[in-house]
Amino acid sequence: MEPKTPKTSETVVRRLTDYLRCLKHAQIQGKIYLKSTEMAIGCGHNPSIIRKDLAQFGALGLKGTGYNIIELIDNLNKILGLTKARDVILIGAGNLGTAMIKYPGFSSVNFNFIAAFDNDEKKIGQFIGITPILSLNELNNFIEKQNIEIVILSVPASETLKIVESLNDDYIKGVLNFTSEILPARKNNMFIHNIDLAKELEVISFCMKNCLS
Amino acid sequence: MEPKTPKTSETVVRRLTDYLRCLKHAQIQGKIYLKSTEMAIGCGHNPSIIRKDLAQFGALGLKGTGYNIIELIDNLNKILGLTKARDVILIGAGNLGTAMIKYPGFSSVNFNFIAAFDNDEKKIGQFIGITPILSLNELNNFIEKQNIEIVILSVPASETLKIVESLNDDYIKGVLNFTSEILPARKNNMFIHNIDLAKELEVISFCMKNCLS
Repeated sequence: MEPKTPKTSETVVRRLTDYLRCLKHAQIQGKIYLKSTEMAIGCGHNPSIIRKDLAQFGALGLKGTGYNIIELIDNLNKILGLTKARDVILIGAGNLGTAMIKYPGFSSVNFNFIAAFDNDEKKIGQFIGITPILSLNELNNFIEKQNIEIVILSVPASETLKIVESLNDDYIKGVLNFTSEILPARKNNMFIHNIDLAKELEVISFCMKNCLS
Repeated sequence: MEPKTPKTSETVVRRLTDYLRCLKHAQIQGKIYLKSTEMAIGCGHNPSIIRKDLAQFGALGLKGTGYNIIELIDNLNKILGLTKARDVILIGAGNLGTAMIKYPGFSSVNFNFIAAFDNDEKKIGQFIGITPILSLNELNNFIEKQNIEIVILSVPASETLKIVESLNDDYIKGVLNFTSEILPARKNNMFIHNIDLAKELEVISFCMKNCLS
């Protein structure tokens, strides 16, 4: 049965991705069922919130037994849109972009970097691992030919807006923006997600001040 | 008056950092007051949640006028522990580490990378911008002499645990873990924050599937 997908907040979606990691971890350990209380220990969320989040999508654990791990992983993959492998491209093959292509976590969640784009003549024609670096001039042509829906953006802040404006949004539906230029969350049919690495330092700063006492 | 700092969840802390960005943005635009409804547009959270979060820390807006921007920025900086500049160090001067030192967002939130550490002889003695790359052998000596409290970790997954175990937790209180090795959230007095870049792709995948319809 297809899981229900109600309108939900980004906060809930982030928790769902935590549950998914926790379930995969338990699966590797050979477990069949996982209780919300066990999941709570693994991912740091409250068991009642876990049950509420999952119930919202039609997933109900068995009292005293917990959730069937394989079934719930399958449902969460469907809910998060992770059932099919997705081809993504990188724009900006600098340090951060290179790090992302090499990041071991991406392949495990079914995302493949099939090309990187840059305007630096010295980089064009080179490879990052097995991913070719192509000229920015070929960008939209490539997007259309390869039917690309997701772009990872790691260019200088000053170039961000120009590049986003140039993207063909008949194809591109998601932009992960790692530049320091904050973009609006939507542009026509494109969903834009701004990542601010500095935020993580602020969160840890708060915890050092308050959580350790 | 010192703002109240009740026990709070990471979700709330993340929202506080969003409010802070939103307030700074309004300040640059020359505004004096900001309403929760205006903040809601800027940061994508519900106005009633914004009011509730801020009230928890003793910050109350004036009805019809909103929050005093300077006062609230000051309070949020105190709450998040951002009032004094912090020296942080990087362990692992690879692509991701280099990108982080060059990341323009860090300096604006009062964090200074004062050194990077690596075990690659070719890198030791070099600089990333103005930040020197030192030998891993000097790590704990440096931490003690410079009284370092925060470490950013971007080493290969296989080296992560060994390095964290070796850190002197009389000094280090916060570890931002960018490796793909997931660490427990606490080790003695050390607060560890695992960053999973793949999660951002999962969030955007969900939104492409559900938020755009």
